[in-house]
Amino acid sequence: MSGSSLPTLYGRLKRLAAENVAGLNVAELLFEITDRSLLLLTAECEQVSLISEVPGKEYVAFKIGTQLSRPVNRASFIPSREEMTRRWTSFNPRGLTAMSVDQATNTIYTLAMSFCAANDVLKSGDKQTPGRYFEILNAHIFANAFAVSPRREIDVLHVDDDPATLPTDYIFDLGAERPKFHVPVKTSTRERVIQVWAHQRVLNGVYGENRYVGMLVVLNETKLDRRTLRVIEICLPEQWKLYQRFIARLERIYYLDPPQAYLGLTGFPQITVKKLGEFFVERAQLIEGQF
Amino acid sequence: MSGSSLPTLYGRLKRLAAENVAGLNVAELLFEITDRSLLLLTAECEQVSLISEVPGKEYVAFKIGTQLSRPVNRASFIPSREEMTRRWTSFNPRGLTAMSVDQATNTIYTLAMSFCAANDVLKSGDKQTPGRYFEILNAHIFANAFAVSPRREIDVLHVDDDPATLPTDYIFDLGAERPKFHVPVKTSTRERVIQVWAHQRVLNGVYGENRYVGMLVVLNETKLDRRTLRVIEICLPEQWKLYQRFIARLERIYYLDPPQAYLGLTGFPQITVKKLGEFFVERAQLIEGQF
Repeated sequence: MSGSSLPTLYGRLKRLAAENVAGLNVAELLFEITDRSLLLLTAECEQVSLISEVPGKEYVAFKIGTQLSRPVNRASFIPSREEMTRRWTSFNPRGLTAMSVDQATNTIYTLAMSFCAANDVLKSGDKQTPGRYFEILNAHIFANAFAVSPRREIDVLHVDDDPATLPTDYIFDLGAERPKFHVPVKTSTRERVIQVWAHQRVLNGVYGENRYVGMLVVLNETKLDRRTLRVIEICLPEQWKLYQRFIARLERIYYLDPPQAYLGLTGFPQITVKKLGEFFVERAQLIEGQF
Repeated sequence: MSGSSLPTLYGRLKRLAAENVAGLNVAELLFEITDRSLLLLTAECEQVSLISEVPGKEYVAFKIGTQLSRPVNRASFIPSREEMTRRWTSFNPRGLTAMSVDQATNTIYTLAMSFCAANDVLKSGDKQTPGRYFEILNAHIFANAFAVSPRREIDVLHVDDDPATLPTDYIFDLGAERPKFHVPVKTSTRERVIQVWAHQRVLNGVYGENRYVGMLVVLNETKLDRRTLRVIEICLPEQWKLYQRFIARLERIYYLDPPQAYLGLTGFPQITVKKLGEFFVERAQLIEGQF
């Protein structure tokens, strides 16, 4: 393991991901960043128990001086560097099938959250770095799972004007006879989530209904009050139903720390919310277009 | 004129607006805040000429110490407290018809920009206060122009579930035989503008196509590089066309500092972009449902 700092390692990750986000060197670097982050969090930070107002979930935060990390779900987080090193040997992002749903979910949760929390205590108020890191992590996993590299824009045919391109979230195009997946990746959604449905609507308009299959990936929906140390989840299930009815249809919404308010969505319209680990169980069917 | 500070005056504005945003006391306070802001900007700030990369427009910024304001369009801004006091006598938000289109646009531009720029030099990084202030200013103007108070949520009929409400931007409901206006108000839009079209889509889905008439109000689209002091406008006309084609139709987009890239939109789909002052010229037709 090199002696490089976390910002240096993150800079290297962005460069490697720009070359080939599916590469084995990206996976190695993700685990190295995680190991370095866990070292910082467990050896140099104070651990603060938070007051969880989310039924059934416990949250902690990590602290150096006055710098406090985002809330970390205690049951999903793997603080042991040794355990995460062991999981490296069974981390095959094409399948992750050697792991149970919870093992896969928690492994990816820890790959995401360890760096996000470490970055929080190193750089106050930086939302861009965790967001970009989480995108790269998921682009790596889905690029391997779908065996195709993602794109970030698609062509739009104009009838009279010049052709234009539409910037998009990740697009995984599996080829002529297979689904194309539209995979927005967000650390949290809140009221901004309407953008995801709206982009899906534009894709449906340009290419026909659900030619691109919408599959949203989210880290969590927690919000920490730094004064009272209370953690809540911000969920808008009634608004999701309106978006799913009136804007477009998202086929799957995967969470690493799924809110019960979304897992429990029933009735019309159907909105299928799952732990991200479930993706690896249903991957083969999804690739065949069976949702 | 009272000796209250700008934050105190702004707090009072929020309270009065919550009671009756159309009230004369709100108008008086908007002009008092503008007078106080102009005093700060012209008597206590250094004025910095910016390097405008926007053809045909000159921008300046105001500065105290290291605190730099957002770019202010020199031709649209009225720096004279005496001139703005004179305009108070002809400021009738039901009409503003005594003024030319440019006079009305520049009066409202100055009412908006003087406080936004003053707040920039007083409170670094505060985006919420200028955004909320700009909302109140426009809510006051449109509430008088439409002679009805706005709402911020509408009922949504669920077939099986309990009724839900949808939080919205300002809704002006002119009654059974007249249009209802959906008026989002933004200091700038950039990539977030897709939310406006998406909300319009939900309204169309719930109430039928264009039962609510979409009318977006924007301050400007400038972006300042604080290191080089260069000002650009960030415009996405090709993406607007896709949103207007595939998400929903906005009937009007009014700007106080309109980008040429949007004023010059032609062809299909039609997107009508105007100076906000034009609204008062066409107000009577719009109320009759003639767009």
